[in-house]
Amino acid sequence: MVASAFLPELWTEILIPVCAVVGIVFSLFQWFIVSRVKVSGDQGASSSSGGAKNGYGDYLIEEEEGVNDQSVVAKCAEIQTAISEGATSFLFTEYRYVGVFMVFFAAIIFVFLGSVEGFSTESKPCTYDDTKTCKPALATAAFSTIAFILGAVTSVLSGFLGMKIATYANARTTLEARKGVGKAFIVAFRSGAVMGFLLAASGLLVLYITINVFKIYYGDDWEGLFEAITGYGLGGSSMALFGRVGGGIYTKAADVGADLVGKIERNIPEDDPRNPAVIADNVGDNVGDIAGMGSDLFGSYAEASCAALVVASISSFGINHDFTAMCYPLLISSMGILVCLITTLFATDFFEIKAVKEIEPALKNQLIISTAIMTVGIAVVSWVGLPSSFTIFNFGTQKVVQNWQLFLCVCVGLWAGLIIGFVTEYYTSNAYSPVQDVADSCRTGAATNVIFGLALGYKSVIIPIFAIAISIFVSFSFAAMYGVAVAALGMLSTIATGLAIDAYGPISDNAGGIAEMAGMSHRIRERTDALDAAGNTTAAIGKGFAIGSAALVSLALFGAFVSRAGVHTVDVLTPKVIIGLLVGAMLPYWFSAMTMKSVGSAALEMVEEVRRQFNTIPGLMEGTAKPDYATCVKISTDASIKEMIPPGCLVMLTPLIVGFFFGVETLSGVLAGSLVSGVQIAISASNTGGAWDNAKKYIEAGVSEHAKSLGPKGSEPHKAAVIGDTIGDPLKDTSGPSLNILIKLMAVESLVFAPFFATHGGILFKYL
Amino acid sequence: MVASAFLPELWTEILIPVCAVVGIVFSLFQWFIVSRVKVSGDQGASSSSGGAKNGYGDYLIEEEEGVNDQSVVAKCAEIQTAISEGATSFLFTEYRYVGVFMVFFAAIIFVFLGSVEGFSTESKPCTYDDTKTCKPALATAAFSTIAFILGAVTSVLSGFLGMKIATYANARTTLEARKGVGKAFIVAFRSGAVMGFLLAASGLLVLYITINVFKIYYGDDWEGLFEAITGYGLGGSSMALFGRVGGGIYTKAADVGADLVGKIERNIPEDDPRNPAVIADNVGDNVGDIAGMGSDLFGSYAEASCAALVVASISSFGINHDFTAMCYPLLISSMGILVCLITTLFATDFFEIKAVKEIEPALKNQLIISTAIMTVGIAVVSWVGLPSSFTIFNFGTQKVVQNWQLFLCVCVGLWAGLIIGFVTEYYTSNAYSPVQDVADSCRTGAATNVIFGLALGYKSVIIPIFAIAISIFVSFSFAAMYGVAVAALGMLSTIATGLAIDAYGPISDNAGGIAEMAGMSHRIRERTDALDAAGNTTAAIGKGFAIGSAALVSLALFGAFVSRAGVHTVDVLTPKVIIGLLVGAMLPYWFSAMTMKSVGSAALEMVEEVRRQFNTIPGLMEGTAKPDYATCVKISTDASIKEMIPPGCLVMLTPLIVGFFFGVETLSGVLAGSLVSGVQIAISASNTGGAWDNAKKYIEAGVSEHAKSLGPKGSEPHKAAVIGDTIGDPLKDTSGPSLNILIKLMAVESLVFAPFFATHGGILFKYL
Repeated sequence: MVASAFLPELWTEILIPVCAVVGIVFSLFQWFIVSRVKVSGDQGASSSSGGAKNGYGDYLIEEEEGVNDQSVVAKCAEIQTAISEGATSFLFTEYRYVGVFMVFFAAIIFVFLGSVEGFSTESKPCTYDDTKTCKPALATAAFSTIAFILGAVTSVLSGFLGMKIATYANARTTLEARKGVGKAFIVAFRSGAVMGFLLAASGLLVLYITINVFKIYYGDDWEGLFEAITGYGLGGSSMALFGRVGGGIYTKAADVGADLVGKIERNIPEDDPRNPAVIADNVGDNVGDIAGMGSDLFGSYAEASCAALVVASISSFGINHDFTAMCYPLLISSMGILVCLITTLFATDFFEIKAVKEIEPALKNQLIISTAIMTVGIAVVSWVGLPSSFTIFNFGTQKVVQNWQLFLCVCVGLWAGLIIGFVTEYYTSNAYSPVQDVADSCRTGAATNVIFGLALGYKSVIIPIFAIAISIFVSFSFAAMYGVAVAALGMLSTIATGLAIDAYGPISDNAGGIAEMAGMSHRIRERTDALDAAGNTTAAIGKGFAIGSAALVSLALFGAFVSRAGVHTVDVLTPKVIIGLLVGAMLPYWFSAMTMKSVGSAALEMVEEVRRQFNTIPGLMEGTAKPDYATCVKISTDASIKEMIPPGCLVMLTPLIVGFFFGVETLSGVLAGSLVSGVQIAISASNTGGAWDNAKKYIEAGVSEHAKSLGPKGSEPHKAAVIGDTIGDPLKDTSGPSLNILIKLMAVESLVFAPFFATHGGILFKYL
Repeated sequence: MVASAFLPELWTEILIPVCAVVGIVFSLFQWFIVSRVKVSGDQGASSSSGGAKNGYGDYLIEEEEGVNDQSVVAKCAEIQTAISEGATSFLFTEYRYVGVFMVFFAAIIFVFLGSVEGFSTESKPCTYDDTKTCKPALATAAFSTIAFILGAVTSVLSGFLGMKIATYANARTTLEARKGVGKAFIVAFRSGAVMGFLLAASGLLVLYITINVFKIYYGDDWEGLFEAITGYGLGGSSMALFGRVGGGIYTKAADVGADLVGKIERNIPEDDPRNPAVIADNVGDNVGDIAGMGSDLFGSYAEASCAALVVASISSFGINHDFTAMCYPLLISSMGILVCLITTLFATDFFEIKAVKEIEPALKNQLIISTAIMTVGIAVVSWVGLPSSFTIFNFGTQKVVQNWQLFLCVCVGLWAGLIIGFVTEYYTSNAYSPVQDVADSCRTGAATNVIFGLALGYKSVIIPIFAIAISIFVSFSFAAMYGVAVAALGMLSTIATGLAIDAYGPISDNAGGIAEMAGMSHRIRERTDALDAAGNTTAAIGKGFAIGSAALVSLALFGAFVSRAGVHTVDVLTPKVIIGLLVGAMLPYWFSAMTMKSVGSAALEMVEEVRRQFNTIPGLMEGTAKPDYATCVKISTDASIKEMIPPGCLVMLTPLIVGFFFGVETLSGVLAGSLVSGVQIAISASNTGGAWDNAKKYIEAGVSEHAKSLGPKGSEPHKAAVIGDTIGDPLKDTSGPSLNILIKLMAVESLVFAPFFATHGGILFKYL
């Protein structure tokens, strides 16, 4: 008998929900602080602004501008309402369509998994331990379906609440920007934190409750229990796919359409209220970057937990019924919430932003601080939550693992995340030479800009891949697939902080849009632009995290799938596997072709409409007539709903088709192929896009001599930079981030359907 | 005892060299016909031009223009000399640098392979059959080194002769264009055929002679003999890498530099003699597209043959010493030469081009005819050259195979090549909707053009990957790695025709350049443009073949490597393999980043120089002063020599470093990863580039109503199309085509060094 964990089961049962509730309370508290900025009526917060005069652009911090102009406040409130309504209406439409799909897919799960034992209601010997009796496959089918729906609903809530918070915060950030950039930063950051904590905590809480409720039925059959729980990951991730793709197409169709006519043809500034697509553009930031990303990271978190749990259930934790050790993944996440809570205080309370150039370091410090503290936190959890020695299922055998080894597995994931974050920052921030080189190449026009940008994206893949490879090697060597799963959880353990700095970007972007539309002074716009430039980099960092963790998660899920499907080796030197590998590596290209074409077509439609309005509405350019915002919102909505279906089906149906017709070996190849190929495209696409965006901002800001020589706005190099930025939009916000869902989702879907494929799969080869 | 082949050994020994010689004679005969067009002095060929008046642009065919203007002929001769001298001088410089590297690498091969048995000169038991005695590893080291040098020299000759032929033919094509487009087509096509046949035949002949000479030493030790022969593939491929990369950087730096200043800034036509980079641009076509591609396809051919031979040597063919069956790969190639010879007559003698729109079908028919006849040819070779039943080595076991199964393996490769060719044509020819859609997206500017172009490239990957996957599945299932190798040979069996239609493109491109520079009339230029547009598509088809065959070849080499290294499974579910897979999938991105950045930087330098000349040389724009062509040639030369080293080292050193430090499992992962990921990028890059080029040509030609609405030259959509074309240049002519060398070369290098890695590899894990 192996020793059990130090922490008693009762404590585990108490600690996890307590941490989750602490996270939710903290989130609500931040919301309360943000809500004190009044968007209508009197100004609540005081208007003192301290801080020494240092750094460039001191005035961005110092001088108050039009704080007492109540008409501006009313205008902001009006725009905020328009954005919020547009976003809500889109999300409802999206959820309605996706809901139909989800019901349909839930039925498939139930029928397919139920068919494994021919819908028998009798208990049977367990898969991994035939001396014990397990619940029937029909029960697992039913509970998997329930878990699937719960995952989907939690994902919807995550995205929807995130959007609500962001559209609540955007105008407040604008209004605070009148008082100084430091104030505005705090509002935007706090709002991001609201989303981060709410999402991390609710994801944990729902999972915890689900496990405990399912346990009432399953009792000692943990194998079946955690197999059913994997449905939670699938539900979360399927929802995230549609959220990312739909939201991504929405936001970029509007953005590209607005920019092409407004900035390039009509020479009016970004977010100018005369541009008919401007509301759609701002709605897009909220439904794509906020709601989509929220669902995405929730999905990653849910899948990583499920992968770890399902492997643990057939390891000594599960076999010995050591509940605390079983809950190790949840304990890591609980600790993560506490650590992120402390980290947040460093940005909101311990220090104050006093110059524009302090924004990026402040955000970067969030990553460093959370990683450093979390390392200690993991040590604590590993010490109290794990027995000193235990065994982990490793494709048919049990591997002996020490608790310090598991500590290292989690740490290596955590620190790999930090490295990926820094590399991403290096390649996408305009403070460093790569983006400056790209900006410089705009001298010779758009073509060289694009060539340099693509090369930058390709190059930015190198170090992250090595970081991921090292994490995999260490964690896999120490603790097989369980190690990889907890490494992924390590990377995601600081998810609350990651989401906070990630959500901060689109909120600042929106704030800038509102300032422009409300006709506020140029200085306010400069302040929000400064926030936004930092936000571009953090968005890229967030995507880096999402991709890195997706790679680890999908490998862990892949391993769990292979274990569950009873495959012991996935040999590249067999025809079934190698063709799977080749076709799998192609899928990300197919998927990207679909999503990019969708953005392109929707943008063309948007351009036609915007041009039409400029040409037919008299007085629009002069600002005497109002554009028809609603039609543009409708174009984006219709396009994204229509266009998200084919790529969604590609991802959702591929594992089913391959598994059913070609069997588990080929499916294993497909999963491995799409993993190793998709990671590269995802990283390069999102970094290329981020770099182009910031190269443009670098020229616009004109801070250094070099940047001034390329500018100002409207110069030939600037026009070339705008073209690059526009090309980067679908890369960084549509296809790039959707790809990590592709690789995770196919893996988790294969895992959920593994019993079905193992029983009925590969019919094509059976008859050949 | 298994039955041996129907064809007696003596006949095999005679037939192979006879076919090779027939190919060479045919090639010289074509050269003789081309040489009858006189570039200086009197006009040789008659000037009658028949043909009915049909098709658009009849005048392109019909009217003769300035046939008797001798000053034009002199001018053409002068330009031709300048291009030829530039190309020769570059190639000599390139070969000097690469020569140093080759000598160095030859030493590495000798030392590393010699060290396997500690430089012992004693015979030892064979690796696969320890009842027999084989030659010492030192002998294999020496003979591998010799084969390596022979391969490199043959590759140099292929590239160099190709370049000579092309620079001989370009001005002749221009002069014939005065008589009509049909005449010009024939000259360009015949010249391409000269190159195709010379290359296919000499590659076969050198390999045949090498085998027979080595056999004198090796005698019955075929295992050692064909292991040494693999050096031939490595030599050919290493040379090809530098040729492709160096030539690719040269040609695109000049092309992009010339276009950016000439076409976009100065608004002068392409190939205008006032543009200082124009000679460098035309030189580039010859050293990049002709010499580079010649070396590349020769490399593929050599490697496919080596992969098949080395597997055959440890199968029943080798064990039973059945020389005819052993030479099956060479017999296929011999048959290919005869089939291509007949096919060529269809283009040059049986039919005549009578309208512009007949050019593309004529080239396409070449593919169809050669494939159809070759199918019969393969059947004949498989019937006479193979025993009815035999065994093939399959990772430790011997698999029984029938001759009709091998026939199917070769056929599936051959026909997959045709499918890839047609798909490539569909996605890159402006006769179909994909390119027309891309052209249409230019309405809204360069950004949408780029987005649509990238999406097109991604989409164009789908069917070729399925074609390759099916070929692999069929050939692998029937005859293990030997099947895959002969499938690759099947795809390459019509290499002479493939090269002919491939070389035709750059020759036409050059002919257009010469027409422009010699100040010939607009109509001549239109004729060469019509040839060139078809050439763009055939170039893309050629690249499709090259990539498809590279995928099969490198898989076969990979299989041979694994067999030789004594590995029986390459299990994705082991840490060593999965990290190899991940890092391997990243290498094509790293490599592309290097090559694209190189083109970008070199182009920037070129732009500065061209701008400088336009600004400082008085009378240049007016055409009264001559530009300084030599400086531009020097910039391209220096840049490409300097920039080809880092990517070259990346490819050449990776297998050595991985194999030595991490061992054969990780190296297997790296090979599989770079294969499945590299194929996708290579196909999408070359198709995207081809599509942009032809979208631009579509707008320029303005043949349909739709095209007219986007044009004419100089319109906003046209400018957007030019930007896309410029971005596509490094994608389609530098990084894309180099990638297939990357995947093949790493595989063949691993195969050559397999004995070394098996003995001394993986030192890092040994000490951890």
